[in-house]
Amino acid sequence: MRIAIVGLGLIGGSLALKLTEAGYSVWGISRNPATCQEALERGAVQGCGTELAQLTLFNPQVVVICTPLEQVLATLAALVPYLSPQTVVSDVGSVKQPIVGPATALWPLFVGGHPMAGKTLQGIQGAEANLFLGRPYVLTPIPQTQPQALAVMQELVAAVGAEVVLADPVRHDQAVAWVSHLPVMVGAGLIAAVSQEENSNILALARTLASSGFRDTSRVGGGIPQLGLEMARYNRQALLAALRGYQAELKALEQLIEGEQWEELLQKLQRVRQEWQQFPVNQGAP
Amino acid sequence: MRIAIVGLGLIGGSLALKLTEAGYSVWGISRNPATCQEALERGAVQGCGTELAQLTLFNPQVVVICTPLEQVLATLAALVPYLSPQTVVSDVGSVKQPIVGPATALWPLFVGGHPMAGKTLQGIQGAEANLFLGRPYVLTPIPQTQPQALAVMQELVAAVGAEVVLADPVRHDQAVAWVSHLPVMVGAGLIAAVSQEENSNILALARTLASSGFRDTSRVGGGIPQLGLEMARYNRQALLAALRGYQAELKALEQLIEGEQWEELLQKLQRVRQEWQQFPVNQGAP
Repeated sequence: MRIAIVGLGLIGGSLALKLTEAGYSVWGISRNPATCQEALERGAVQGCGTELAQLTLFNPQVVVICTPLEQVLATLAALVPYLSPQTVVSDVGSVKQPIVGPATALWPLFVGGHPMAGKTLQGIQGAEANLFLGRPYVLTPIPQTQPQALAVMQELVAAVGAEVVLADPVRHDQAVAWVSHLPVMVGAGLIAAVSQEENSNILALARTLASSGFRDTSRVGGGIPQLGLEMARYNRQALLAALRGYQAELKALEQLIEGEQWEELLQKLQRVRQEWQQFPVNQGAP
Repeated sequence: MRIAIVGLGLIGGSLALKLTEAGYSVWGISRNPATCQEALERGAVQGCGTELAQLTLFNPQVVVICTPLEQVLATLAALVPYLSPQTVVSDVGSVKQPIVGPATALWPLFVGGHPMAGKTLQGIQGAEANLFLGRPYVLTPIPQTQPQALAVMQELVAAVGAEVVLADPVRHDQAVAWVSHLPVMVGAGLIAAVSQEENSNILALARTLASSGFRDTSRVGGGIPQLGLEMARYNRQALLAALRGYQAELKALEQLIEGEQWEELLQKLQRVRQEWQQFPVNQGAP
């Protein structure tokens, strides 16, 4: 199968590496010639171009659009003239509802996708073949989605070692608002709150004393600003609902502490610890 | 130098291991005979007893109280009859203001201490000699603190490979409210908020899709409930102030998203990323 990856960042580069390793014929498209160069040198792709038109030479059976979210629809529209009628197209955007309907209208063989994997190091520099291994990879079919296109994408997800999770776009967006987008705002708020401490002695001491607990809690909040913006912009309603639910929980914790309701606070923290253990990603942790 | 460690949990056990390794003569006291047994088997201590009175046999020059916070003062009061007049006493509690004054009144050679180290695995099972290596170890002298007692504790901190940080108790408590105690509530609120999602399909999907970002942001929130309670109870005012500052930041983020002020949100997240890089614990991270 011939697969084209449009956008060779962390996700696109990692998909290319793994699919090449799995024996597929993989081409890349990147506007940046240096990225093409690096993808070729790392053996992620067997060919690479800077223009979408070059795809007519490769004639891919699958195209995965791995651009930033805001460019997915424009990229697809620009791609259409160069696709053969049987080509399946997917994307890897972290929000699906604003993409999947319009993209399917543009191209009937579109299937929305979202691999649940990432790392702090961005770009092709961070790419690694095993980024998706054992991770969920969401595919978001809608009633108009063609079954054969979905089947092709399921094969591709299996090929990168990920686990297929099927969800409709709206449900996907609400779930990631909770576990992926809300944590960015939670961490960003933590960094911002500490940093506005007015007593410079206390702020300096806080920075000195910050340990692994602070580092982990704030990590995704201190991540790439453009990614945080993208989540907020394209998943605005679900993220706002999550932020409001979160603030209600914080207020409840504050009131327990304010009212010195220590038995209730202990019970709450015990319940939280049980809930925390119900997330598969936490299982095996002590 | 003869050092007694009262309470052989994660911190006490780790101090004992490292101080023994560094050539000091170390005794332990634990109410639990099985803990004594394990400390002896691991070579953390050369002697171990279940009663404070047994310390008269060992005649320590330093005693470090490593009990839970709420037992520090009672333990010190119970210790006093068995101490020789030159014995230096310290503790490792995560809140200092409620401890240091009363403890110094009970025992003039008391010095408050707080090693900034921890891990998820609690108890002597989690203890490791290098837990404190390169980490800050706060000592909190007050005007009544005896200089020779402080000097002894500075030697001991250096012996466990940690970096001495001197701070007054109030300043310490405010700083750890920001970077140690607030993150617990931040993470606990996140877990609680996701878990109260009423649509069971969305909750199940959120749990399935939760990845390293959620895991890290929520980790300390899902920690030992008794530790979270202790922080809230003994550092109540500073934690409440931190919680309120945090909620103001979240509200500001919510308003930027609500108002679709994307340029301002991007600037905010860029500022947050710069602030995040100013914490030494984040330096070297990409």
